[in-house]
Amino acid sequence: MNLALLFNEDFVAPDRAVLRGRRLAHLQSVIKVVAGDTIPVGRSDGRLGTGEVVRLTDSEAELRVTLDQTPPAPLPLTLILAMPRPKMFRRILQTCAALGVKDLWLINSYKVEKSFWQTPWLSDEQLRENLTLGLEQAKDTLMPRVQIRKLFKPFVEDELPALLADKRALVAHPGTTTPCPVHLNQPTVLCIGPEGGFTAYEVGKLEEAGCQSVHLGPRILRVETAVPVLVSRLFDACL
Amino acid sequence: MNLALLFNEDFVAPDRAVLRGRRLAHLQSVIKVVAGDTIPVGRSDGRLGTGEVVRLTDSEAELRVTLDQTPPAPLPLTLILAMPRPKMFRRILQTCAALGVKDLWLINSYKVEKSFWQTPWLSDEQLRENLTLGLEQAKDTLMPRVQIRKLFKPFVEDELPALLADKRALVAHPGTTTPCPVHLNQPTVLCIGPEGGFTAYEVGKLEEAGCQSVHLGPRILRVETAVPVLVSRLFDACL
Repeated sequence: MNLALLFNEDFVAPDRAVLRGRRLAHLQSVIKVVAGDTIPVGRSDGRLGTGEVVRLTDSEAELRVTLDQTPPAPLPLTLILAMPRPKMFRRILQTCAALGVKDLWLINSYKVEKSFWQTPWLSDEQLRENLTLGLEQAKDTLMPRVQIRKLFKPFVEDELPALLADKRALVAHPGTTTPCPVHLNQPTVLCIGPEGGFTAYEVGKLEEAGCQSVHLGPRILRVETAVPVLVSRLFDACL
Repeated sequence: MNLALLFNEDFVAPDRAVLRGRRLAHLQSVIKVVAGDTIPVGRSDGRLGTGEVVRLTDSEAELRVTLDQTPPAPLPLTLILAMPRPKMFRRILQTCAALGVKDLWLINSYKVEKSFWQTPWLSDEQLRENLTLGLEQAKDTLMPRVQIRKLFKPFVEDELPALLADKRALVAHPGTTTPCPVHLNQPTVLCIGPEGGFTAYEVGKLEEAGCQSVHLGPRILRVETAVPVLVSRLFDACL
């Protein structure tokens, strides 16, 4: 937690916020704050700044908040991921949030097991918590938007073409002949398949919608590694 | 496991290897092989190829092995990491191996807790197992070399200068003014600090030894995310 992200419900006055729960525990046990200390804070979807601890009890920390800095720029990226295996999913959410991904779509694919969609990590509350952890890591405030599409074909046929308009559109597909471009730094849609990859039919549908298949070299990477590798390769000027 | 990595002790004849344990369990429960199937294999520190399952029992799979392909190129990188927190360490080892890091040094730093060095993941056997998982993920065979240095100052003063000879040398240091270069694709030494970063004293010693401090932008990334981001940025032509 490189900053404490503050939500509307934390504010008790325009410049006062009260922390409880995980964020309070972190202040107490890791940062070991005392009254009078100043910690980095950010307001969800707002600015960065500092919070002076004006009151500290076992159950609450009240901060006097000054917000005077701009958060890091968002990536110009729409990231479309086949729904990952639940044990990877939390970490992938946190990584996406930390890297500055703001527009994340979770879609179905033949190799996405039905059970993946049952994970409690997909609840609104858990999505927000894990995205918050990524934002707090990276000192960012702008909450990513997550969209869930449990049917592949209607998504690709009815929604994807509009998402691609005026953007570069890529699908990471090991085994294709075109290498992934470097330093695009322009609005881009990137599709990443599940473990084992999109099927040939799915890649065909994505190409039909306007995506270009690109590869990342001979190494097959886990999604949690492929995301930072691809983001870094595409957006070296935006990180 | 995108290939089964075979070690000398697995071979019962020049072209025959026997798998047991984790790799056999994977063949049975995930790939669901039957006798006559062919699976991708690689020989540790050798070539890639295929293994035809010529005998399959509950406890063993015997493969007829053909090795006729070159593994992916190694990265021209010496990666020097402050010893990570044990719960992150396994994943970082696997990620480094999957990305093609072949020369990894684990060093001490002020913010490395003494207990981190007690982790069982540092045993030779566990290092090999986790590096193997990364190589199998990425379809690589060349086992990374891991060096452990539990004293910062003797390492930086006595060993580091020789490691830097004829190489570009960088230390990832959030807050410095020089951005990390892109697509170097040349022999490079990269130092990455612990959670919370190297201390000013440590950065000074690394600079004295010949490292240049560079930053990755305003976002603070976890080591497990910073490694793929930096590797991708420095070696876009090598991945």
